[in-house]
Amino acid sequence: MKPVKIGIIGLGTVGGGTVNVLKRNAEEIARRAGRQIVITRASAKDLTKQRICDTQGIALTTDPYEIISDPEIEIVLELIGGAGAVKDMVLAAIANHKHVVTANKSLIALHGNEIFAKASEQGVIVAFEAAVAGGIPIIKAIREGLSGNQIQWLAGIINGTGNFILTEMRDKGRDFYDVLAEAQALGYAEADPTFDVEGIDAGHKLTILASIAFGIPLQFDKVYTEGITQVTRADVEYAEQLGYRIKHLGIARKTQEGIELRVHPTLIPERRLIANVNGVMNAIVVKGDAVGPTLYYGAGAGADPTASSVVADVIDVVRALTSDPENRVPHLAFQADALHNIPVLPSQQFKTAYYLRLNAEDKPGVLADVTRILAKHQISIDAIIQKKPTDDRALVPIILLTQITLENEMNAAIAEMEALPTVTGRVNRIRLETLG
Amino acid sequence: MKPVKIGIIGLGTVGGGTVNVLKRNAEEIARRAGRQIVITRASAKDLTKQRICDTQGIALTTDPYEIISDPEIEIVLELIGGAGAVKDMVLAAIANHKHVVTANKSLIALHGNEIFAKASEQGVIVAFEAAVAGGIPIIKAIREGLSGNQIQWLAGIINGTGNFILTEMRDKGRDFYDVLAEAQALGYAEADPTFDVEGIDAGHKLTILASIAFGIPLQFDKVYTEGITQVTRADVEYAEQLGYRIKHLGIARKTQEGIELRVHPTLIPERRLIANVNGVMNAIVVKGDAVGPTLYYGAGAGADPTASSVVADVIDVVRALTSDPENRVPHLAFQADALHNIPVLPSQQFKTAYYLRLNAEDKPGVLADVTRILAKHQISIDAIIQKKPTDDRALVPIILLTQITLENEMNAAIAEMEALPTVTGRVNRIRLETLG
Repeated sequence: MKPVKIGIIGLGTVGGGTVNVLKRNAEEIARRAGRQIVITRASAKDLTKQRICDTQGIALTTDPYEIISDPEIEIVLELIGGAGAVKDMVLAAIANHKHVVTANKSLIALHGNEIFAKASEQGVIVAFEAAVAGGIPIIKAIREGLSGNQIQWLAGIINGTGNFILTEMRDKGRDFYDVLAEAQALGYAEADPTFDVEGIDAGHKLTILASIAFGIPLQFDKVYTEGITQVTRADVEYAEQLGYRIKHLGIARKTQEGIELRVHPTLIPERRLIANVNGVMNAIVVKGDAVGPTLYYGAGAGADPTASSVVADVIDVVRALTSDPENRVPHLAFQADALHNIPVLPSQQFKTAYYLRLNAEDKPGVLADVTRILAKHQISIDAIIQKKPTDDRALVPIILLTQITLENEMNAAIAEMEALPTVTGRVNRIRLETLG
Repeated sequence: MKPVKIGIIGLGTVGGGTVNVLKRNAEEIARRAGRQIVITRASAKDLTKQRICDTQGIALTTDPYEIISDPEIEIVLELIGGAGAVKDMVLAAIANHKHVVTANKSLIALHGNEIFAKASEQGVIVAFEAAVAGGIPIIKAIREGLSGNQIQWLAGIINGTGNFILTEMRDKGRDFYDVLAEAQALGYAEADPTFDVEGIDAGHKLTILASIAFGIPLQFDKVYTEGITQVTRADVEYAEQLGYRIKHLGIARKTQEGIELRVHPTLIPERRLIANVNGVMNAIVVKGDAVGPTLYYGAGAGADPTASSVVADVIDVVRALTSDPENRVPHLAFQADALHNIPVLPSQQFKTAYYLRLNAEDKPGVLADVTRILAKHQISIDAIIQKKPTDDRALVPIILLTQITLENEMNAAIAEMEALPTVTGRVNRIRLETLG
């Protein structure tokens, strides 16, 4: 068969990595795909910039629309990232009957429903494996590998920056802002780290995973996101003493009442494999009714790992060039007309266990007050640690682990605890999942 | 689109599980596949036997060929296992233009080359996700998810029985044969445990994984297999003291000289995720040049987990019913005419590090003799533990960790050590991989 011509929009980290992988592994890729895959054109904002890839043999331009309108190009790779102008480019490529491969999580999370609808109208594919967890083939695993299952829940470390920070806090007893500054210096974290540390980036990825797991539309606006800025070194240490690690997880769970979509710091038992995923690495646990728990681990970012997924998508699309558009793997795993609008629950309705840390005066009766409040809200206690005073103000940290409860009850209980005259400051609450 | 009719040969654990999953998740599966998947016929040796599944609505027979020759059936599921008569059934189904889904590792490992050639002639698919690591979608991950990579190596815990035994030996300080007896009682191990504990079963699976990773023909006869019967409780404990766990791994590695295909007990650093995969669970690490190390974890056996992969294959095949046979995912990941006959290395040419345990007389000069022999064979030592005598014969166990060396050199060194008058019995050797 004749070579397939592709065009790349964006020659930064991911675009450059994709050029490198396609060139370096050209022979092996052709042996797999049965056809050569040739990059004929690429666009970048500034053509004079130093690049990580060799662009020999590729016609360069500053205008992405030259690629989008090239009649010889069958697949357009959108590797710029972000939303805005990029959305128009992707829609234009679809309108021109191009298949699209993208690594753009926010584009898919925010505009995927519209993009996939247009793609289906035109009979083209928009592939996005690289949008979630970099090189881990997690979209394929859920969408195809576990297609016989009812997915019950999934939980993932899907932001490498956050995991790097939490790993350093635990391994070296460092403080959050100290590690964040290092992560920024190392290039793991952006100058504005909000997307990473506040869970927005993980929220985008969770939106995508939940949609393909449960057959629901993409709905980022309904994801509860909580960052890791409130996790202290003390919390990490207390968790450790109780046999837990704190990880920033994206969790999607299907319950009788609806779907929980939440990103937050989470205590997980240290014996779980995912509790031992450290540094910038990503991992996702997916629990299916037939398969049980499965885990997928690998690099969640970086030029070459992300390119690994982009190139896999390109090969998938090449095979689909000759396929019946009515009988392909659906973009969101379920047929477009078979998505269900299962309600996404507000955070008040989440059901989870909790780690609570509060500072109390070193007086008799404090613990009795706290446990009375919890009992009133039908919250059972699994473990209590009461520490010696940490400073001369004679405040004692009290740490509690609770059993699973309704978040609404916990919110009320925390408000009452904070109102106790013997309790100082806020009650620090971190959710706890056994992932069993 | 109209429903797809399938027939199942074999209603034991895997067949029964597949019926259960297809029935239980019928609605969800149809939402994904875009078509209903209906089991119209099934065969079993004994129709009076009690089953784990409800066969209502399925026409039962004792003759598999009734299914194979049914013109309405498009996909035949071979879920008997074993080779022999089963091979003829699969070839007959192919000759009748049926697509085949199988969970049969020995069939694929031993006869896959022939079966895939016939399938390609007839333009049908033989899918075998369930043949390796049960419910983990590892075939799909390597064949499609990592298709942009040159795979450098893979290493897997791909036999649950062996992992259960080694886990119990470590966790509870038990002896091999004691745990084996329990595994047999629990149904994890067969009455004749040879296939599991001697690495034959893992060898079949490794044969398949290596073929799709490197683009080489299936060649089980060239796999080096070593069982776990020689691993003692003492080895497990010494490994632990040195920071390692012993796992029964299937390893495939591409080197300049050729391909290593080996199944053997292996020391791996305890900090590696795969070192913490316990009980009957399976996991495979796959290292690609672009993606780096990735890991896939889940249940490697059992009715429902295996059915998870069988059903995923059925859905894949349903989608491929309308596809161009020339442009599908190739059976062995690489186009049939693009497989390379890269030499598989004899074990003498393996390169690996070693754990050695020997029993020596408690006399001066023994360690000098041992280290002199290793130095002569250019084998560097990483660590030495010399224990106090364990019994009244005053023999001392000496434990050594070496750096990477050629197996041929190690064989010679071990022969010389065993010939030392001060060394008693055999030198117990376990290979060591850092999997870095």
